[in-house]
Amino acid sequence: MSNSLLTLNDDMMKNFYKGKKVLITGGLGFLGSNLAHQLVKFGAKVTLLDCLLKSHGGNPFNIHGIKKEVEWVKGDIRNFSLVQKLIKGKELLFNIAAQTSHTDSIVHPFLDVEINTKGQINILESAKAHNPFLKIVYCSTRAVYGVSKKKVLDEEILPNPMDIYSADKLAGENYHRIYAKVFGLDTIILRCANGYGPRAQMLQPSFGILNWFIRLALDNQEIKIFGDGKQVRDYVYVSDIAQAFLNAGKVKQGEGNIYNVGCGKGIPLIEIVKKIVQIAGSGKIVYVPWPETNKKIDVGDFTANIDKIKKEIGWRARVPLEEGLSQTIQFYKENKKYYW
Amino acid sequence: MSNSLLTLNDDMMKNFYKGKKVLITGGLGFLGSNLAHQLVKFGAKVTLLDCLLKSHGGNPFNIHGIKKEVEWVKGDIRNFSLVQKLIKGKELLFNIAAQTSHTDSIVHPFLDVEINTKGQINILESAKAHNPFLKIVYCSTRAVYGVSKKKVLDEEILPNPMDIYSADKLAGENYHRIYAKVFGLDTIILRCANGYGPRAQMLQPSFGILNWFIRLALDNQEIKIFGDGKQVRDYVYVSDIAQAFLNAGKVKQGEGNIYNVGCGKGIPLIEIVKKIVQIAGSGKIVYVPWPETNKKIDVGDFTANIDKIKKEIGWRARVPLEEGLSQTIQFYKENKKYYW
Repeated sequence: MSNSLLTLNDDMMKNFYKGKKVLITGGLGFLGSNLAHQLVKFGAKVTLLDCLLKSHGGNPFNIHGIKKEVEWVKGDIRNFSLVQKLIKGKELLFNIAAQTSHTDSIVHPFLDVEINTKGQINILESAKAHNPFLKIVYCSTRAVYGVSKKKVLDEEILPNPMDIYSADKLAGENYHRIYAKVFGLDTIILRCANGYGPRAQMLQPSFGILNWFIRLALDNQEIKIFGDGKQVRDYVYVSDIAQAFLNAGKVKQGEGNIYNVGCGKGIPLIEIVKKIVQIAGSGKIVYVPWPETNKKIDVGDFTANIDKIKKEIGWRARVPLEEGLSQTIQFYKENKKYYW
Repeated sequence: MSNSLLTLNDDMMKNFYKGKKVLITGGLGFLGSNLAHQLVKFGAKVTLLDCLLKSHGGNPFNIHGIKKEVEWVKGDIRNFSLVQKLIKGKELLFNIAAQTSHTDSIVHPFLDVEINTKGQINILESAKAHNPFLKIVYCSTRAVYGVSKKKVLDEEILPNPMDIYSADKLAGENYHRIYAKVFGLDTIILRCANGYGPRAQMLQPSFGILNWFIRLALDNQEIKIFGDGKQVRDYVYVSDIAQAFLNAGKVKQGEGNIYNVGCGKGIPLIEIVKKIVQIAGSGKIVYVPWPETNKKIDVGDFTANIDKIKKEIGWRARVPLEEGLSQTIQFYKENKKYYW
């Protein structure tokens, strides 16, 4: 891959994405919509597929400001004929739609399997049949690593998923890798660490703990920390994640390769929560014992090793935690009514 | 786990399995039916679930000799209500039913996903709801390792599945592991190397190359060897595999643990084919270049490291290759009309 990728900037993005026909599945969700905003800025022709699945991240307000510049198709990756239709003629697919709740996936595993395994076959079969040169960037999750003895995880670590969502995302990765190897599809896989930022749903905690804590702080509620709060995670701001997807979309041939996306630095949860309370100017921290169910599916400390994506795709996280938290808190203060 | 497992014999098997209510999914198939024969010998009450999926391994003749001693339900693990009904009141489940063709899985991936991912959730949800103390032995495959730089593979090697079948079997493994960790189900997972022996289907090569070569030899046909025939595999006789399942069924609490099942010795394909031709007294070996499609999904040399199953479950393969091949060839000579 070209070294020029190491000096990516807005102009290069504009040159690459201007006029490109891009489909984003899950386009009204947290990551999908943030990506859409950036793509519109770079002049891409953006189509969003999102069914606004109940209790999930899709929110029509997420495309506030770009509504007239994008096409939104209300539908679902479970609908094979719709997926086939939408994939025709596109140049890039950011494949982000998913059932994304860890806890829901063990309570309603069938929904997870329908979306996260069969839905992915719908997409790959459509590309294979109708658009074999389509570039596909698949959104996976660091949750595929599950519990590991190691603390800093590179892409060669043995996956150990702890819930159906994580197991199915791993299956989705494998499908994308296999369609690259066997059928030559141009797929690339990003394993994202814990994201936070504007445009995430704020109605329940199961889709991203940091955003949930921001809500509690803004509502001046108690923020319950399990145990001593020293559990380490790798938190990355959503615009940085979106940037990783844009970089991945520029890679010449993805070959089904897998890349960690994280800030590469583990941060104890409690440190972040203290910052949130400080920036928001409200919220109270309370320590509680680990609930049994959470304990069972908690994946333990995690920091992403991001050497591979730095080297091969020229990406690293750039937004400092304080800045990301401030922007997020500001966004929700201004737009509370669309998310609460 | 008890050391007494290390000295398992027929009497101990009889003591354990006599009167036990056992369900075998895929019970009319290759491994399922061989297992059924052994279970009947040990006095178990055996129910077989098999839908005789077209072009797959199920064959009513496979239960010739035990037909009156087993109950066969013609049905499918895709049928959730049937699975729920059958799982009630059972003590053991040997979970073997699968779409098992590598090549079919990349041509018809939806069928594979329906059976090998959703079908497995049907089973685990049924056990969780209706029979949480059911012991479940899940049949997986060494194909989950796919292509690896190592030649001798233990259970800690990074899986690298090369087709949808292998990816979905890996998902099935993860489901069984997760239901053990999260819901306490008593599951155990066996990753089987290349099996051969009586009661395999003989109509096409995609379910087991050794049996297919035996057919070609018995028909005095050309046996096409890709490349130089030095590709190494770990071949294990089906009664040995069945024995591994019986041992696994006796383990006190499976905890979703994974065990390789193989003879632990890699053998070049060409050596075996020469033995087949010699024992059968017919067949001609022909060397041909690797076809493109096969090359793409071939997993390369493979030998199973079987230290873990030896140590923890007290199992190792006992039938020498010559004996296994002789028994297999004899079986098909006698029963050709039911398999050709």
